[in-house]
Amino acid sequence: MSTDTTATALEVALAAAAAAAAPAAASTPEVRAGWLVAVADALDAAAAELVPLAASETHLPAAPRLKGELARTTFQLRLFGEVLRDGAFLGATVDHADPGWPMGARPDIRRVLVPIGPTLVFAASNFPFAFSVAGGDTASALAAGNPVLLKAHPGHEELSTRTGAIVREALAAAGAPAGLFDVIHGVEAGVAALKDPRIAAGAFTGSVAGGRALFDIAVSRPVPIPFYGELGSVNPVVVTPGAVAARGEAVAKAYAGSFSLGAGQFCTKPGLLFLPEGHGLQEHLRAAVSGIAAQPMLNERIADGFTRRLGELGGAPGVETLVAGHLDGPVFTPSLLATTAKAFAQSDAAVRDECFGPASLVVTYTDQAELLDVLDGLEPGLTATVQGEEDEAELVRGLLPALTRIAGRLLWNDWPTGVTVSWAQQHGGPYPATTAPTTTSVGTAAIERFLRPVAWQGFPDALLPEPLQEANPWELPRRVDGVR
Amino acid sequence: MSTDTTATALEVALAAAAAAAAPAAASTPEVRAGWLVAVADALDAAAAELVPLAASETHLPAAPRLKGELARTTFQLRLFGEVLRDGAFLGATVDHADPGWPMGARPDIRRVLVPIGPTLVFAASNFPFAFSVAGGDTASALAAGNPVLLKAHPGHEELSTRTGAIVREALAAAGAPAGLFDVIHGVEAGVAALKDPRIAAGAFTGSVAGGRALFDIAVSRPVPIPFYGELGSVNPVVVTPGAVAARGEAVAKAYAGSFSLGAGQFCTKPGLLFLPEGHGLQEHLRAAVSGIAAQPMLNERIADGFTRRLGELGGAPGVETLVAGHLDGPVFTPSLLATTAKAFAQSDAAVRDECFGPASLVVTYTDQAELLDVLDGLEPGLTATVQGEEDEAELVRGLLPALTRIAGRLLWNDWPTGVTVSWAQQHGGPYPATTAPTTTSVGTAAIERFLRPVAWQGFPDALLPEPLQEANPWELPRRVDGVR
Repeated sequence: MSTDTTATALEVALAAAAAAAAPAAASTPEVRAGWLVAVADALDAAAAELVPLAASETHLPAAPRLKGELARTTFQLRLFGEVLRDGAFLGATVDHADPGWPMGARPDIRRVLVPIGPTLVFAASNFPFAFSVAGGDTASALAAGNPVLLKAHPGHEELSTRTGAIVREALAAAGAPAGLFDVIHGVEAGVAALKDPRIAAGAFTGSVAGGRALFDIAVSRPVPIPFYGELGSVNPVVVTPGAVAARGEAVAKAYAGSFSLGAGQFCTKPGLLFLPEGHGLQEHLRAAVSGIAAQPMLNERIADGFTRRLGELGGAPGVETLVAGHLDGPVFTPSLLATTAKAFAQSDAAVRDECFGPASLVVTYTDQAELLDVLDGLEPGLTATVQGEEDEAELVRGLLPALTRIAGRLLWNDWPTGVTVSWAQQHGGPYPATTAPTTTSVGTAAIERFLRPVAWQGFPDALLPEPLQEANPWELPRRVDGVR
Repeated sequence: MSTDTTATALEVALAAAAAAAAPAAASTPEVRAGWLVAVADALDAAAAELVPLAASETHLPAAPRLKGELARTTFQLRLFGEVLRDGAFLGATVDHADPGWPMGARPDIRRVLVPIGPTLVFAASNFPFAFSVAGGDTASALAAGNPVLLKAHPGHEELSTRTGAIVREALAAAGAPAGLFDVIHGVEAGVAALKDPRIAAGAFTGSVAGGRALFDIAVSRPVPIPFYGELGSVNPVVVTPGAVAARGEAVAKAYAGSFSLGAGQFCTKPGLLFLPEGHGLQEHLRAAVSGIAAQPMLNERIADGFTRRLGELGGAPGVETLVAGHLDGPVFTPSLLATTAKAFAQSDAAVRDECFGPASLVVTYTDQAELLDVLDGLEPGLTATVQGEEDEAELVRGLLPALTRIAGRLLWNDWPTGVTVSWAQQHGGPYPATTAPTTTSVGTAAIERFLRPVAWQGFPDALLPEPLQEANPWELPRRVDGVR
């Protein structure tokens, strides 16, 4: 039985979201922090129900994976509560009237960020909690003061419905406006919502094809809207000669663990491992990869896609298979392939594009010049990693500008899977990592995507919003007359 | 003789911009501040040459207008120098490793903003200095550390070429990388540059039609890029009954001055004046508007467009002409039209869209409910203004949520023309005010458009960029472990 949202039900949800925009915008950050904490508490309390439901729909292990993911999700909601209490996110700025301003007398002008409006969030397949109903996009859009309409992912419909109901109940009990949050189902409803003039922003985590199609709809509207799509990433890892010499076997083992984690279904999966020619790690790599237990993929569609992509990759010129994983459902063991920087430089999308699933490609380079050439030609992504030794600083320093150009997060002697939620996190990068390279979808800065600035010129104090009043009643950090 | 940039010359400019990206990104903010000040000094020194050239190409008066606009432009460059020395724009954030982080052990992670890459700026017709070659988009993109390619406006080609030469000489003398800045001419070159994969961002000030066409190109590229278009705005002004009673004649006079300033060729021109029914200001309005001297428009194309738009507006049902301005070139006197909120509510684009030139529309409202209805239906824009009395706070407070929804800058007892450059300025708003409602094109926050975040995870101090090093060698304001 289809759970798709009907046109009538969608209209109700959109009208409710639009009606909730004004009361949501009028709520104080302190009050909204309370809403987020209430949602987090309710989800934590429902863990015993939600985790098994998620496991049954996604084939991901309940512990530690899904339990940990739910903990991450509720932590994230609470962290946005801290962002709201901190208040710096409002960017409150006060310039007093200044008759001596060099370009000519300056009026009193004050600037603060306000909610952008009802936001449509498309949930991801691979993180049924953290990038889904109450995930990062929802948390940051709600924190910013926006109603959220959540398009459920078909890979976990039941979980989405249940999580949505718990979120709605928690919000209602906490006194949030009706219509602040709702879940919709089905491609048709999602597209119709994205085209609706009441929706002011969109967010998405998923494939390049799906995300680009939605981005194209968002920017082709009569009134185009910001669309924050987190799409694909190959996540190169560069291993230096020093790291091979010092700890090659450990690197091989950690790499195998990282690219096969969650059956390789992470947007931060290391898809390319650059090794110096003559690295001598083939056997360590084979052993490490062959030792990984079989894991089921999220669903049949994704498994079919992986099998197809892996076939393309393995059949490409100059690519050899080091470990041929088990490729038929329901469970998969990881595959490892190899090529040279020279062959890679001449390769096409079959080799260069993200391969979502438990496979990765080793690329051997002859020297730093060749490595830099290949890195410069790489499609940008979310992360780039260096495995190196501190006494190779000069060599590494030569790589960093190229890596900075192609990634939003750089890692040193670590692995890109595992994305902490913190003040300094950056999860985004040049396209196709994201459709909005100036933003992040993880970490506290994610809230910036759902706010827009408004300046108030010449208003009497009594008519100004609290963040801009002279007495600074909320005790916000503000820049006043240029001084922080 | 056409000055259009040839395909060969464009390729040279694009290649040079791409080559300049790495050295520009590697420059310190302090050094870039020096470049901006050098450009400002050179332009100030060339005022006696540039101002008459601008006047001859645009028909704008040399003084105070163009002289003031050049002063604004060089002030703006110097203010971005202050932004660079202040350093907060880098958003440097440090999260130390924390094994007790509630969602699981946190690695050391540090975030800073880096330049987005070579930026293409389209100059505006109506501000030959401040929104043109060395205007706000150029200043903020250069300040952020990006090479800039400037597409000159055909309305002031010679000025653009001269200004560009002065900017390039000043940058070279200040030691900036070759290729950091260049000027290109012609629609074809502009479109080709916008489609070029080496261009990472675009900015534009101009008409809805032109800006939307370029936005569509930018977002339809294989790799879509951020496009910051500042397009159109009707800039409503609401006059309360109290303001009519207390100072109706003064309001009428100031309104006439504001909407006819610069021959009405400002994107912040007040296009709608909402007056309470029975305001009794007709004669004051007629007298004020009729007293405005004739002014030439920027060029024939713009004059023709204005004549056509004014014809549509004047011929729309329910619209009457209070003052019929002189409508044939070369000079124009302002026109004033009037309608009711009731008729306005049923009107189409002929009445509702921006009319670029010396004309404005008075709209009478019967009560606050009717006024709110009309405001809710207005197309968003850059500004919304209230002329009111402090003892009408309750009435005004009822209007502010609606005005906040449709504008990026709210004004009290002031006029929207005249946009100061300061820390709190906001020049932008929901579409069609801008294609990127989360941003501003004027004020120090304009730099944010041309930066993207990069996080560094687990790096030894010696490999981190200065803004993220433990000792904070640049003494930047930073958030460390969540604490500002």
